[in-house]
Amino acid sequence: MSDPLRLGIAGLGTVGAGVVKIVRRKAELIAARAGRPVTISAVSARTRDKDRGVPLDAYDWEDDPVALARRDDVDVLVELMGGADGSAKAATEAALAAGKDVVTANKAMLALHGPDLAQAAESRGRVLRFEAAVAGGIPVVKALTEGLAGNEIDRVLGVMNGTCNYILTRMESAGLEYETVFDEANQLGFLEADPTLDVGGIDAGHKLALLASIAYGVRVPFDQVELEGIGRISIDDIRRARDLGFRIKLLGVAQMTGRGLEARMSPCLVRADTPLGQLEGPTNMCVLEGDASGQIVLRGAGAGEGPTASAVMSDVIDVARGTRLSTFGVPAAALGEVRLARSATPAPYYLRMELMDRPGALAKIATVLGEAGISIDRMRQYRHEADTAPVLIVTHACARDALDTALAAMPATGVVATEPVALRIESV
Amino acid sequence: MSDPLRLGIAGLGTVGAGVVKIVRRKAELIAARAGRPVTISAVSARTRDKDRGVPLDAYDWEDDPVALARRDDVDVLVELMGGADGSAKAATEAALAAGKDVVTANKAMLALHGPDLAQAAESRGRVLRFEAAVAGGIPVVKALTEGLAGNEIDRVLGVMNGTCNYILTRMESAGLEYETVFDEANQLGFLEADPTLDVGGIDAGHKLALLASIAYGVRVPFDQVELEGIGRISIDDIRRARDLGFRIKLLGVAQMTGRGLEARMSPCLVRADTPLGQLEGPTNMCVLEGDASGQIVLRGAGAGEGPTASAVMSDVIDVARGTRLSTFGVPAAALGEVRLARSATPAPYYLRMELMDRPGALAKIATVLGEAGISIDRMRQYRHEADTAPVLIVTHACARDALDTALAAMPATGVVATEPVALRIESV
Repeated sequence: MSDPLRLGIAGLGTVGAGVVKIVRRKAELIAARAGRPVTISAVSARTRDKDRGVPLDAYDWEDDPVALARRDDVDVLVELMGGADGSAKAATEAALAAGKDVVTANKAMLALHGPDLAQAAESRGRVLRFEAAVAGGIPVVKALTEGLAGNEIDRVLGVMNGTCNYILTRMESAGLEYETVFDEANQLGFLEADPTLDVGGIDAGHKLALLASIAYGVRVPFDQVELEGIGRISIDDIRRARDLGFRIKLLGVAQMTGRGLEARMSPCLVRADTPLGQLEGPTNMCVLEGDASGQIVLRGAGAGEGPTASAVMSDVIDVARGTRLSTFGVPAAALGEVRLARSATPAPYYLRMELMDRPGALAKIATVLGEAGISIDRMRQYRHEADTAPVLIVTHACARDALDTALAAMPATGVVATEPVALRIESV
Repeated sequence: MSDPLRLGIAGLGTVGAGVVKIVRRKAELIAARAGRPVTISAVSARTRDKDRGVPLDAYDWEDDPVALARRDDVDVLVELMGGADGSAKAATEAALAAGKDVVTANKAMLALHGPDLAQAAESRGRVLRFEAAVAGGIPVVKALTEGLAGNEIDRVLGVMNGTCNYILTRMESAGLEYETVFDEANQLGFLEADPTLDVGGIDAGHKLALLASIAYGVRVPFDQVELEGIGRISIDDIRRARDLGFRIKLLGVAQMTGRGLEARMSPCLVRADTPLGQLEGPTNMCVLEGDASGQIVLRGAGAGEGPTASAVMSDVIDVARGTRLSTFGVPAAALGEVRLARSATPAPYYLRMELMDRPGALAKIATVLGEAGISIDRMRQYRHEADTAPVLIVTHACARDALDTALAAMPATGVVATEPVALRIESV
């Protein structure tokens, strides 16, 4: 048996502790599978005196993750601190500069600095791997980078924020409004310290950007990714979508079009009888559409100690086995530049608005849509509440630009009481 | 860019032609991802003069696949002929003996001779890879061998014969009997030349045995795998299962128990609201349950030119990238021996039987079950047809041994008109 692969683990939160547990408890199994032992040399975290449910005295302690990254007895830095910049990035850069491999679960760092860090790794013959950064325990980075390597990727879709899917499905099953379920989720500890990372679609957007980079071999400028959160979805939207045979999901979609890369994370309607439509609770789902493979659906836990640690160990064992892969499936230096095209592919849209109870109001809205070249598939006016009436419109497939033109023209009609909610109907 | 990886393709049926198309049409993409070009040196098939939808004149032709396997300008034999023995095995052995890597889609060969062939490969530092042998385009071998490498595997389940799932879901949706849909499927060309490979569960059983080998690091004696086909499932079973909230699937299950490895491919009831229960048509689904990852579900096309060729290319590109993995995740020489334990884990069962229309008939059956220690959850007698009455029983969880005892005792009651149908209810 070869020399052990020696880890330095930076960050001992839930995931870090989970990785330590697996390395300790499954030493024999891992050695058999990896062809060599995997050991831990040293660990690092902000606070030393804290019970993490696993003994740590066998490992050296480093207060400074950068010092950990540079240790001679560390072959692989396992970066589990989080945060796009700061210590995580400093430690990653230090490890790569010192000729070590890096395994990370850090989606924000990768989405913002991934190609540069990957290039730093690859220029030194090192690897930077990030299975745990996307969709927790689901081996989707591996499926896309390796499993579908012979495919042109037609489209990548995903429900990749479990908290948002929990909120949306809980609203439906309990008949509760968004605010109520948001508070519940917060009390259950489901939300990030900054909840907009979850409900604003940012966290899921990071994951989507990473998958898009792999799928299309490009640098994805994260600041151009379309992000829209779930905060404006009401229980009425969920019920009306259901009546139409759809469910509302915070859905990420990446797709190369003639106008550039479409990459968006936004609430969409998907058919209720599809795997995405049937996805309940905090579970994640990624859908990979290859030109040869057809549609591959992957489903599993998107977060939590075990699933995320499982993904970290997948990368660690790959490194131990000697597998050397480019971070994004092609060398980082060869990643293309790409223009992002906002919702370039046409689709039908679901529109909900409150109209003034005034003669000709519906006609004015229909006119605005018609002038933008948008035809209406279905339109329904519901019973008035106070002096406004809820109106639901499903359009035929149209360009997002056309829809934006129509939405911009609506205030001038004088009949729209609130800003309309517009949700894309994604065909899956 | 490094030297090209040169393929010799043995077998030019649907999948072989699909692989040639991908290598030709995506040369640039593959070279970018693999870090080197992938080319074809020579091909081999039974018949030379046949239009396969792709030009082959650029490649040398070999009548004999063994000669192809030994060519100096072939780095990897891509074995797509099929058949457990004969030419496929001879060519594989010749390639390995000549120091070449082998990529194959041959489930029968792998299930019967996999460990020996893998050992032949590994003793020479070569790899033998078989992603395409299991569940077509779904990268399940990769997910299990690599993605879940840090997990003890609790259970592996799968619907891995698309034809059987097509037949069962078509029976339900069209309300047709098995024989009718079987004939339909045959006319559509969905069935193997020997249909018992499909409907007898043998083909799916091969796939299950391979996944079990990886999951538990053992040689699986294929002749001891429990196999039961779908030929005795009636439309009534499907309807009654549905009324109980279940659907009937040809389900493979592998699970390590205190009594040995449980490995079976048999029609089971699964809850209708689970991903397996919701699986329609010829699609495949694999469910991997790891102790850390939790349940990972993979869904996709289990057969066809594109999906299977995509899986072949995944292995080819791995080889081109320099990834060297043991065939079954641990060295073949280290695969353990294992005893197979027939349905060792207890489960509830669905029983359907025709009872003579005679006083005390039901009581006699209930007594037989009770004497075997099996308690009844639900029992329903349906309206008589002629002089027998259909009876449906759902048991509480019981050992299969106990059930077999009860089933063996039933003829002696003199009230059972036909052999009972007994289907396990698998909790997923």
